[in-house]
Amino acid sequence: MITDDAYPVEPWQIRETRLDLELLAQSESLFALANGHIGLRGNLDEGEPYGLPGTYLAGLFEVRSLPYAEAGFGYPEAGQTVVNVTNGKILRLLVDDEPFDVRYGDLISHERVLDLRAGTVTRHAHWRSPAGKQVRITSTRLVSLAHRSVAAIEYVVEALDQFVRVTVQSELVTNEDVPETAEDPRVAAALREPLEAIHHEGGDHGALLVHRTRGSELMMAAAMDHDVHVPGRVEVSTDVREHLARTTVICGLRPGQRLRVVKYLGYGWSSLRSRPALRDQAAAAIAGARYSGWQGLLDAQRAYLDEFWDCADVEVEGDPDCQQAVRFGLFHVLQASARAERRAIAGKGLTGTGYDGHTFWDSEGFVLPVLTYTVPQAAADALRWRASTLDLARERAALLDLQGASFPWRTIRGEECSAYWPAGTAAWHINADIAMAFERYRTVTGDDSLEIECGLEVLVETARLWMSLGHHDRHGVWHLDGVTGPDEYTAVVRDNVFTNLMAAHNLRVAADACTRHPDSSYLLGVTTEETAAWRDAADATHIPYDEELGVHPQCEGFTTLAEWDFTANTVYPLLMNEPYVRLYPAQVLKQADLVLAMQWQSHAFSPEQKARNVDYYERRTTRDSSLSACTQAVMCADVGHLELAHDYTYEAALIDLRDLHHNTRDGLHMASLAGAWTALIAGFGGLRDDEGVLSLDPHLPDGISCLRFRLRWRDFRVTVEAGHDQVTYTVRDGPEHSLTIRHAGEELVIGTSAPTTVPVQPRRPLLPTPPQPPGRGPMRRRPARPVGPTPPG
Amino acid sequence: MITDDAYPVEPWQIRETRLDLELLAQSESLFALANGHIGLRGNLDEGEPYGLPGTYLAGLFEVRSLPYAEAGFGYPEAGQTVVNVTNGKILRLLVDDEPFDVRYGDLISHERVLDLRAGTVTRHAHWRSPAGKQVRITSTRLVSLAHRSVAAIEYVVEALDQFVRVTVQSELVTNEDVPETAEDPRVAAALREPLEAIHHEGGDHGALLVHRTRGSELMMAAAMDHDVHVPGRVEVSTDVREHLARTTVICGLRPGQRLRVVKYLGYGWSSLRSRPALRDQAAAAIAGARYSGWQGLLDAQRAYLDEFWDCADVEVEGDPDCQQAVRFGLFHVLQASARAERRAIAGKGLTGTGYDGHTFWDSEGFVLPVLTYTVPQAAADALRWRASTLDLARERAALLDLQGASFPWRTIRGEECSAYWPAGTAAWHINADIAMAFERYRTVTGDDSLEIECGLEVLVETARLWMSLGHHDRHGVWHLDGVTGPDEYTAVVRDNVFTNLMAAHNLRVAADACTRHPDSSYLLGVTTEETAAWRDAADATHIPYDEELGVHPQCEGFTTLAEWDFTANTVYPLLMNEPYVRLYPAQVLKQADLVLAMQWQSHAFSPEQKARNVDYYERRTTRDSSLSACTQAVMCADVGHLELAHDYTYEAALIDLRDLHHNTRDGLHMASLAGAWTALIAGFGGLRDDEGVLSLDPHLPDGISCLRFRLRWRDFRVTVEAGHDQVTYTVRDGPEHSLTIRHAGEELVIGTSAPTTVPVQPRRPLLPTPPQPPGRGPMRRRPARPVGPTPPG
Repeated sequence: MITDDAYPVEPWQIRETRLDLELLAQSESLFALANGHIGLRGNLDEGEPYGLPGTYLAGLFEVRSLPYAEAGFGYPEAGQTVVNVTNGKILRLLVDDEPFDVRYGDLISHERVLDLRAGTVTRHAHWRSPAGKQVRITSTRLVSLAHRSVAAIEYVVEALDQFVRVTVQSELVTNEDVPETAEDPRVAAALREPLEAIHHEGGDHGALLVHRTRGSELMMAAAMDHDVHVPGRVEVSTDVREHLARTTVICGLRPGQRLRVVKYLGYGWSSLRSRPALRDQAAAAIAGARYSGWQGLLDAQRAYLDEFWDCADVEVEGDPDCQQAVRFGLFHVLQASARAERRAIAGKGLTGTGYDGHTFWDSEGFVLPVLTYTVPQAAADALRWRASTLDLARERAALLDLQGASFPWRTIRGEECSAYWPAGTAAWHINADIAMAFERYRTVTGDDSLEIECGLEVLVETARLWMSLGHHDRHGVWHLDGVTGPDEYTAVVRDNVFTNLMAAHNLRVAADACTRHPDSSYLLGVTTEETAAWRDAADATHIPYDEELGVHPQCEGFTTLAEWDFTANTVYPLLMNEPYVRLYPAQVLKQADLVLAMQWQSHAFSPEQKARNVDYYERRTTRDSSLSACTQAVMCADVGHLELAHDYTYEAALIDLRDLHHNTRDGLHMASLAGAWTALIAGFGGLRDDEGVLSLDPHLPDGISCLRFRLRWRDFRVTVEAGHDQVTYTVRDGPEHSLTIRHAGEELVIGTSAPTTVPVQPRRPLLPTPPQPPGRGPMRRRPARPVGPTPPG
Repeated sequence: MITDDAYPVEPWQIRETRLDLELLAQSESLFALANGHIGLRGNLDEGEPYGLPGTYLAGLFEVRSLPYAEAGFGYPEAGQTVVNVTNGKILRLLVDDEPFDVRYGDLISHERVLDLRAGTVTRHAHWRSPAGKQVRITSTRLVSLAHRSVAAIEYVVEALDQFVRVTVQSELVTNEDVPETAEDPRVAAALREPLEAIHHEGGDHGALLVHRTRGSELMMAAAMDHDVHVPGRVEVSTDVREHLARTTVICGLRPGQRLRVVKYLGYGWSSLRSRPALRDQAAAAIAGARYSGWQGLLDAQRAYLDEFWDCADVEVEGDPDCQQAVRFGLFHVLQASARAERRAIAGKGLTGTGYDGHTFWDSEGFVLPVLTYTVPQAAADALRWRASTLDLARERAALLDLQGASFPWRTIRGEECSAYWPAGTAAWHINADIAMAFERYRTVTGDDSLEIECGLEVLVETARLWMSLGHHDRHGVWHLDGVTGPDEYTAVVRDNVFTNLMAAHNLRVAADACTRHPDSSYLLGVTTEETAAWRDAADATHIPYDEELGVHPQCEGFTTLAEWDFTANTVYPLLMNEPYVRLYPAQVLKQADLVLAMQWQSHAFSPEQKARNVDYYERRTTRDSSLSACTQAVMCADVGHLELAHDYTYEAALIDLRDLHHNTRDGLHMASLAGAWTALIAGFGGLRDDEGVLSLDPHLPDGISCLRFRLRWRDFRVTVEAGHDQVTYTVRDGPEHSLTIRHAGEELVIGTSAPTTVPVQPRRPLLPTPPQPPGRGPMRRRPARPVGPTPPG
């Protein structure tokens, strides 16, 4: 685990106080920079040591075969895996003849800072070479949020005590050696040298390489150029080969003198465009970056982030850990999505190769809610990407003998890449999750242009999928059989409550959308008979309920399955220590399932049901999935277990800063980082929108004195400032003078002219705080303490 | 499909009238010879052309990795695959300088005959070489049932019209080229050259090769020797290399003169014995074979088979197709098991590489019932093999956090090799199938020495498995959740009726066995509390029943699942054209499941329930599994649909003779061939034994005028001669003067002094004959016709 000694708790930055090579891979994920198009892991400038070198372009993947010892019809044969593309981050330094390497000589000090307002990672190193020469290196790296194809690095070397000859080798390196992680030798082979050289060119100060993936035949270009500033004589030259371009800068520095190199990087890729077009695209990115200049890039970055924080910031008074973590999470969610522009938002963003770089339901289910309220245009772009894969989803449905469209459980480009259908294809709920995301976007933004552009078709085709998946029994009750809900420790079941509620919601919003857009739906072949059938099925959907226990079974019969033996089998995560064949038929959960249904379809449950259901499932949920803590936080807050909710919020927010799941090295958990926002805003803020109304109902735990957050709703900017006794709503910028919301279940009109303050409605839990499975209580928060000083960023 | 033109319907032989190269691979399976230890596919003597060259030793396998695109805990990592071992069948012939090859010159006539009483395959070929020289070749092949390690071939060449110089090259060939069937390149690589040379030696007339599998490190020896008879001068010499031994015989033949070569083959393998020990073992086999001589081997073979047919023959008067097929099936079942002696009986016997050479529940469920009534010592040996894997089954159970022992779904040596757990590990019923086989052996033979030797321990450990798999719900009802029954189109369900009944049976017979053997069970740690818990669980086992429909759902909720759309999706087998994710939650069956429960646990169902259940499941069963037709035959006969039962019997019996599943090329379907016997004896004979009593209740369909069959019961030999109106029971050899059986539900005492004749009890179906899914009606029998003449064998 990472302790907060390594990263002090500070409100607007993540600061690494010393370089711990044991935590190098984790730090590369934490310090990753991205803009949704380009992703650079926080590798050291000099290239090594590394945990995992990583440079990624959203959507650029290699294909690989998916092996099956026993094959089955409809199993996907081709997988997609994110590729480590040409690395432009490398700036090697030689001090006299000795390479700067933190493992040699003396690293007198080393600090890295991720500045959440500047959008940069700055590194300060003070090094004494084995020969005793001291230099100070300061590098600042950014991936431009304003300029999609551009990244840049300012690299400054200062001689300290004696004259040194300094050599900087700034590189583009393709097909780096990468530690092999895949067990399947064919997978490793496919990714060993994924890029074949197409073209290379160079000048004195820069170079450009064009490559193509062997299997998927995607072409990419990477370019670099340099500004060099140094007193006195300097030599700059560039070598270019197929897989390596190297600009070498040599000069001498007297004590106090500095060499400053600004490296501009341009990246582009395409499955369609020609070699010359891509080459020119990367060159144009470089030209644009030079035109802006380093300071211009910094300024644009800060301006972009100022605007973001103005709409998105969350202030958590009294809890500095959560304060830092929720901003860290929001920053990385933004980095994963800001300029993705019709590429998938991966489960790990562009911070590592975990999950092969795939996107899951995490995107629509956990990340997009945050974006919809904070950066709605990024949410719209993510939804446009999903809609762009509709034809592939139609093909998949047809292959499975289904109507409509079946979106993939995991993918990069849109083809199903899940090789284990009980926790893949059978998790049909992803289709309803996508539909819900379209509907939320429409409800929250008030803009139905996206629905007209592409959302309606997605709603219609997913509704058709549900109709062909479900059936009415002889009593007229509509069932969904053989499905897997969010909880992956029980699969291929009858009538998963979450799935059924979400499917019914999908059917209803699809029918409503067709009513709104009769001409468009006519073109899609929708008749009034079809939409009537959707509504009928939604109304007849079976929602199992255990009358004896007074709880909802997460699926038919769940509450009569065997209890998991938590006295004997508690090595977590269970899926690494127990077979599915034992987990599936037991009352043990990997993650919130019915509890998530109560958040997303809140209106379908009474407060008493919520309280009893939370009590029931808390005792059986292992939280072996990183998607669970945020949902448990929200629903524990909902039923009045505010301290427990606070603990879960902490756990969701700190997942990567404390490496709680021991896999931060592979990349950050975007859904959990987004979930930290959700835990605070939907949990303590009480935000719900499943009835199309902005509903809020804040209640704070003892450890938070004030929660202040910003939301976009229609064209309003809403600020909510919640204390323990009262809440103040402020509205800006709206198209009208007032906005009607729901506060604690009652309608409230808030005006743009002045803030509206109302009392918090007291909430008492109906039941005592429930226990968790042994060893699965949430990570406890530390006692509150004063916020530390913020060093100059 | 194979038509009966290719193989005329004859009662005691399978005769191929002409060589059809399109059906070569199928004929190699049909003409395979084996004794349960050595298996030789019916490849042509001269080695090519071939469909699939095959020489197998029971239990000799190579390991290979099982790949998973998404791995899971408890998935087996190592697979086992049958190996094509050193081929001793090859006898190449050169006529002058031209190799005898059926694809060249003129094949004037070609006939092969499998003689079911002689236990030989004889081939007659009349060939004119491209140069116009005519020869007649007659070869006879046997794999000795009397001498486990011995096979032999008599090869005769006769010159017909002119003098010819004849060269015969008799070979042992290791690592033959085999057509690659596995899609996974690593699997193919593992099997490409599976054997590494250890030792080779030779004399003038013979040679011996010792090899070892690379991965599994099993050592094998193959030896050959020759007797050569020819008028005039002959030269015999032998070359031996690592992977090839070749004895060359050269002589001249005038018209009418014959060269006769008798080739003796000896095989042995071991995982333990040393190179010299194995070498000597194969040499001893050769010496023994030479001592017997060719005629001695022929005589011993016929004597063995005379004894077998005396105990096992089934006479089907009026239906020559079934007559031939049931004998063909019995013969191959015998070949698969006679001398297996504590090796697994594979699903395909030793006739091909289908299913990787694995054994499944087919063995205990379908093959052993036949053996128990006809060759009980072979059944005992098969059960001893299973018991010898008990430690591996215990390890598997422990890995899965279960008590007792969990036997593998598919294996060669005992380790689980199933790579798809929903239709593998979850099919826990194999454990109860094994227990039932032990119990049947005890009941039928009256011999409890096998139970004492090893059966008790298997019963106890399987009972313990069930106790840890099942649980009582809050109402005290015992459930088995997350299980897969025999029908593989519905999986991972609650309370599969078949599984629950079989588990309860397993628990009861285990408790009873412990009562019989208190000292032995004490040593196994069994207490009276434990056996009481077994009985309690058995009594509390939930058997779902749909009161509204009056049928048993094959698992909880099955009768309310969606109906399969047979109007749209009927490309069979469905598993090749529909995904599991669609099949599992629909009311469509691959094979008999609840219907099999009604055969094996007959006493648990009333006649009315049987009739309604058959009616319900007939409409929904696709028979995509070769295990289904025989069971449907039995239960259709049980409820009075005798003509439908006859059609199913025909289909089960003809599966390979007509290649009904289009995969006879990969080997014969032992369970279906055994099932032909079961369809006749349990179906039309009404044999049941699930209550420990020999129960019979014959009813014949119109197309069978008389059914005469033999059974062993205790130490009696029982002959049943059933007509349409009356049945005659004859008892021989028993330890007492009379035997009490059940006839048509009533006790009947039959004496050894004279046959007992009783009337057939009339049976009328309660319901009309049900239809099958579209396109899945059984293959119809042809109209009855006179039995064809039997040519001299």
